[in-house]
Amino acid sequence: MAANTILTVNGGSSSIKFALFDNSASIPLLLRGQIERIGGAGAVLTAQGSKEREDFTQPIAGKDFPTAITGFLDWIRSQGIEQSLIAVGHRIVHGGSHYHLPQRVTPQLLQELHRLVALAPAHLPSELLLLETLQERMPAVPQIACFDTAFHHDMPRVAQLLPIPNRNNADLRRYGFHGLSYAFLLSELLRTEGTVAGHGRIIMAHLGNGTSLAAVRDGKSIDTSMGFTPASGVMMATRSGDVDPGLAYYLARTEKMYAAKFEELVTTQSGLLGVSGTSGDMRDLLQQEGTNPRAAEAVTLYCYQIKKCLGAYTAALGGLDTLIFSGGIGENAAPVRARICEGLTFLGIEIDAARNNATTTTATVISTDTSRVKVHVIPTFEEIVIARAVAHISNLPTATT
Amino acid sequence: MAANTILTVNGGSSSIKFALFDNSASIPLLLRGQIERIGGAGAVLTAQGSKEREDFTQPIAGKDFPTAITGFLDWIRSQGIEQSLIAVGHRIVHGGSHYHLPQRVTPQLLQELHRLVALAPAHLPSELLLLETLQERMPAVPQIACFDTAFHHDMPRVAQLLPIPNRNNADLRRYGFHGLSYAFLLSELLRTEGTVAGHGRIIMAHLGNGTSLAAVRDGKSIDTSMGFTPASGVMMATRSGDVDPGLAYYLARTEKMYAAKFEELVTTQSGLLGVSGTSGDMRDLLQQEGTNPRAAEAVTLYCYQIKKCLGAYTAALGGLDTLIFSGGIGENAAPVRARICEGLTFLGIEIDAARNNATTTTATVISTDTSRVKVHVIPTFEEIVIARAVAHISNLPTATT
Repeated sequence: MAANTILTVNGGSSSIKFALFDNSASIPLLLRGQIERIGGAGAVLTAQGSKEREDFTQPIAGKDFPTAITGFLDWIRSQGIEQSLIAVGHRIVHGGSHYHLPQRVTPQLLQELHRLVALAPAHLPSELLLLETLQERMPAVPQIACFDTAFHHDMPRVAQLLPIPNRNNADLRRYGFHGLSYAFLLSELLRTEGTVAGHGRIIMAHLGNGTSLAAVRDGKSIDTSMGFTPASGVMMATRSGDVDPGLAYYLARTEKMYAAKFEELVTTQSGLLGVSGTSGDMRDLLQQEGTNPRAAEAVTLYCYQIKKCLGAYTAALGGLDTLIFSGGIGENAAPVRARICEGLTFLGIEIDAARNNATTTTATVISTDTSRVKVHVIPTFEEIVIARAVAHISNLPTATT
Repeated sequence: MAANTILTVNGGSSSIKFALFDNSASIPLLLRGQIERIGGAGAVLTAQGSKEREDFTQPIAGKDFPTAITGFLDWIRSQGIEQSLIAVGHRIVHGGSHYHLPQRVTPQLLQELHRLVALAPAHLPSELLLLETLQERMPAVPQIACFDTAFHHDMPRVAQLLPIPNRNNADLRRYGFHGLSYAFLLSELLRTEGTVAGHGRIIMAHLGNGTSLAAVRDGKSIDTSMGFTPASGVMMATRSGDVDPGLAYYLARTEKMYAAKFEELVTTQSGLLGVSGTSGDMRDLLQQEGTNPRAAEAVTLYCYQIKKCLGAYTAALGGLDTLIFSGGIGENAAPVRARICEGLTFLGIEIDAARNNATTTTATVISTDTSRVKVHVIPTFEEIVIARAVAHISNLPTATT
C-alpha cells in the first residue's frame, strides 16, 4: 500500500462506494469497492484491487447506515489504509446556491448542508452521516466535499430559472446533477478527441438508476435535465422525472396523498418500476419485454423521453457534434442506445449496429464513420474527478500569513 | 337573423365566449362575442356581427358566473337568437378516458364530467354550470359537448403514459388539450396546402394564455405537451407547465404549502407572471423587457421552453415539414416567433424577418421561400370546429326503430 493515498467515498441510501488512489502525478487507482445491501441482513463489502489477488468479498455488519460506516472504518484501519491517507474526498449531491467548488469541510458548510436536506432528502442525510462520522473518527485527516452540482453552477440564467414565482428564496433554482460524471466524460473527450471536439456542441447522457442529460458548448454546461432536485428531468429507475403539477393536487384530492407519500411515489415507486409494475432494473425489463407488455412500455417510454431530450438539447445548442452515453444503462444496454438514436439521422446521428452491439468495458465509438455526430460510449469514473480535486487541494502549499 | 342557427359557447373562469353560425352548407359565422370580467363590477358583453352595424358593447349583470349566464340568456332571447337555434355546442376541456367524440349531453355524461372535475378544477366547473343552465333554460334545444381532448384521443400509447405507477386508475393518463384549435389548424393546412403537407410531419404551437404544442404525422396527433391536466407541458401565462416533483414536497416541507395552495401557485401565479413578477400578458412583457430584467427573463424562458419542445417533437417525428403558430401570442407576437425559431436552421427552419414582422389577421407564411420547413401563422377558430360537429350531429337523420 502506498504511503500517500486519497480515499473517495460516496454514500447512497443503501450503499457506500469507495476508491483509493495514489497521490502521485497521474493519481492511479489502487483499489475500489462498495458496501451493499445496508439495512438488510446480508450486507457485504466487495473490493477490487489493482492486482487480481486483491479482489475479495466479505460480509460486514450493516444492519443500518451507522453500523455500516463503523464496519467500513474498521476495515479501512485493518487494511492499513487510514494511516496512509492524506485526505478523504466525499461526493455530495447538492451544494445549494452557495457551495460548488471542491473544498474542505467546515462547520459552516455542514450547517448549510443540513439546511439543504429538504432539497435532496433521499441523498444528503446518508452523505452527511458519512461526512460527520469520518470527521469524528479521523480528526487529523482533511475531509473534502465535492459537489455533484458544480459542473452546472454557471449555466446560463435561462437554464437556472424555475417557471414559478421567485418567492425571495435563493434556494429555488435549477442546479443540475451528475456533475462529477459529466466532468469526467468531458475530460475524456478532450483527452482522446482533442479540443475541437471538446469545445463543440456536446450532449452527454448519464443513464443509470439516476438518469440525466447535459448540453455542453465551449466546454460549459448550458442545460441539464435534472434541475432543482434529483427527482426531476427524464424518468429514471424509480424516479418519475418532471411531472404534470396537477398530479400533486389530483392525488391529494382523490387519494388523500399528501407531501410525504407523494415524495415516496415519485422517488421510489415511479419511473421504470412504476410503469412496468415489476422492476426498475433495465436488465430485467429488457429480458421481460418480449412477454410482458408493461415491461416493454417502460423501456419504450424511457427511450422516448431521452430521444425527445436529445432533440430538445440539439435545438438549444443549434445542432450537435458529439453524443456521449454513460452510466449503468448507457454503458451496457445496447438496445436502449439503439432505440434512443433510431430515426435521428436528420440530426446527423448514425449508429453502427455492430459497434453498438459489441460488448466492451472501455470507451468506444458506436457511430458509423460517416455519421455527422460522433457517438461515444464512455464508462464514467466519478471517483477520479473527486481524487483529482482532493489532490489539487491537498497538494497546494499551505497559505502563509 | 337566420331561422336555422347554431350557437357555440365556451365558459372560462371569468368569461363566456360565444358564436352564432348559420346551419347551411358552409356554416357561415353570423356573430361572435364574449362576456368578460365576470365576478367584477364592470362585466361587459361585446359582440361583432357579420355587418359592421351589428358590432356593439353593453354592460351586463355579472357579479358571479350564474348571474352572467342569466344575463347572457336574456340577451340571447332578446335578440331572437334562442328561437332560431337548432342546437348549442359547448367546448368541454376534458372528457376523461370515456368521452371524446362530440355528442349530445346525457345525464350519464354530466355525471362523468362532475367526477372529472378533479382533473381540470380550473375549467370544468364553469363549463358544467353553463351546460346545465342552458339545458334547464332551453329544454327543447339539444346541447352538444365537444371535447378539447378529442384530437389526441388516439395518440400512441407512449404519449399517453405517465411515468408513475398505474394504480389501477384509468383516469391517470396523458390526454392532451387544445384539440379543437389543432383540428381547425390542421383542416386549414389541408385546405390551403393540400394532402401532402397535411399528411406530413407537422408541429402546431398553440401559444396563448394556455400554451401547448402538438406533433402530428399522417394527420394524427402523436404527442402533445399538455398532458394529464391543463397545468402541464411548457410554461404559460400563469401556469407553470411540467415541474420538478420535488417542488411539491419541498414547498410542503419548508413553507407548509399543501395541495390547494400548491395548485393555486402552479395554475394562477406561475409561468410568465411568476417569473416576471409583474404580468402574465406577453404584450406587457415585450414592452417592459428593455427596462425590466425579470420581464425579459420571463419572455426568454417562455421562448426557450418552446424552442426545446420544437426540438423534442422534431426528434419524435424524425424531422419536420410544417410548423404552425397560433393562439393569442402565436398569432400576434412576432418577436416571440422569431426567438423560438432562432438557431433552428439545422432543422430546416428559416424565418423571413419581413414576413414575420408584417401585421396581419389572416393566415400567412413567414418562412423564406427556400426554408425546408414551411412556417405558417394561422389564426385559430375553435368555434367553427364546434359548429361543424354540431351541424353534423344535428343534421343526421333521426334513427328509426
